[in-house]
Amino acid sequence: MTYTLVLLRHGESDWNAKNLFTGWVDVPLSEKGKDEAANGGELLKKEGVLPDVVHTSLLRRAITTANLALDVADRHWIPVKRDWRLNERHYGALQGMNKTEIREKYGEDQFMQWRRSYDVPPPDIEFGTEFSQDQDPRYAGLGDELPKAECLKDVVTRFLPYWEEGIKPDLAAGKTVLIAAHGNSLRALVKFLDGISDDDIAGLNIPTGQPLVYELDENFAPVTPGGRYLDEVAAKAAAEAVANQGKK
Amino acid sequence: MTYTLVLLRHGESDWNAKNLFTGWVDVPLSEKGKDEAANGGELLKKEGVLPDVVHTSLLRRAITTANLALDVADRHWIPVKRDWRLNERHYGALQGMNKTEIREKYGEDQFMQWRRSYDVPPPDIEFGTEFSQDQDPRYAGLGDELPKAECLKDVVTRFLPYWEEGIKPDLAAGKTVLIAAHGNSLRALVKFLDGISDDDIAGLNIPTGQPLVYELDENFAPVTPGGRYLDEVAAKAAAEAVANQGKK
Repeated sequence: MTYTLVLLRHGESDWNAKNLFTGWVDVPLSEKGKDEAANGGELLKKEGVLPDVVHTSLLRRAITTANLALDVADRHWIPVKRDWRLNERHYGALQGMNKTEIREKYGEDQFMQWRRSYDVPPPDIEFGTEFSQDQDPRYAGLGDELPKAECLKDVVTRFLPYWEEGIKPDLAAGKTVLIAAHGNSLRALVKFLDGISDDDIAGLNIPTGQPLVYELDENFAPVTPGGRYLDEVAAKAAAEAVANQGKK
Repeated sequence: MTYTLVLLRHGESDWNAKNLFTGWVDVPLSEKGKDEAANGGELLKKEGVLPDVVHTSLLRRAITTANLALDVADRHWIPVKRDWRLNERHYGALQGMNKTEIREKYGEDQFMQWRRSYDVPPPDIEFGTEFSQDQDPRYAGLGDELPKAECLKDVVTRFLPYWEEGIKPDLAAGKTVLIAAHGNSLRALVKFLDGISDDDIAGLNIPTGQPLVYELDENFAPVTPGGRYLDEVAAKAAAEAVANQGKK
């Protein structure tokens, strides 16, 4: 008896396409991103990996990805659960800024530290500014938990309670669980599942729109570390593209 | 203190456009239907009627309508609940058949009885045939409750438990509730809410993609019988179009 967990990073958003830091800004998918989501759904259907329940973040790009993928996979009718703890990492004051310009302005070391250091967050966003979420009704109940900026360690910390209380019970009930989320909330989960070190997680990139399947044992540990992509070739190429973001 | 309930019938489906009886066959929205759904979302946003939770049937045309309308209204992130009890009336052996052909073959009286009589169901569908749902995994738990054909009275009977257990608790919690469903499951609800007689319900047609808002008092009775459409002019024209379906 194993549990089946499927991770799906949203397809390309308008701001991925424009090379901007996005974080909690609620940007829609690009047309390419919609195609990626549908392609992810085709893979689920073709491989017979059929979710019984879906968990999404509160951000449109993950929600639309789930909607499109599940529609193609004929699983649009399954129960839906949403939680802010699946949101992308909050990119603080960098939200809305161009990755290449940040790289050129602050240099390679600072740029990579903001993007990939485990425990150094970017500068805080100021509440009341354009790309802050302090007036957003969907986060009205968060109070002091509403982030101003997050490092990946912060994401792990806020994600794990939802793993325990929101996702594990569905797995334990024998359901195939789909999580439609983001580069960094999924990296946080993979770090936890595979026991990846704080240093090594920097090198892990999760491609967009590529279903990643984990079979988990009775202790919710991966049977095969790293899981398996339903389309290994496409996933490898896409992960490399993520790693190269911000390079000229 | 009143409760706010919003009803939204799905936009035009591929089979509405082809003039076929649909029932529980899981047909997608047409392009026109997608536009209607988005227009419904625009009305919600413009009028500030913002759902806190959405309930849908298990059918794609209602689910996609909810997804598109909520995305436009910036409420894509609200909790989602789905239940088969919100499904369209099961049209039995008529599912997949052309409305005009049925009208010509069986005559006006039989046609209108099947479409609009309160308590005479159409002929049963045969399990195992193309448009039956007996092999559909989403209904695997229904057992003997899986319909072979339904009259509107049957829809009222299976809908009301969900009204009591699924929807009223959300209203009682002060949430603005959106129900994205179907012509006949919404007629069943409106009949119940407004206390419409078995005879008079035949004359009630609910237009597609037009948000219908009910303010309910502390006993969940409508403050204004019939509720109000956010766009009264468009809703009236659309309801007349529904009434004329199957006519040459």
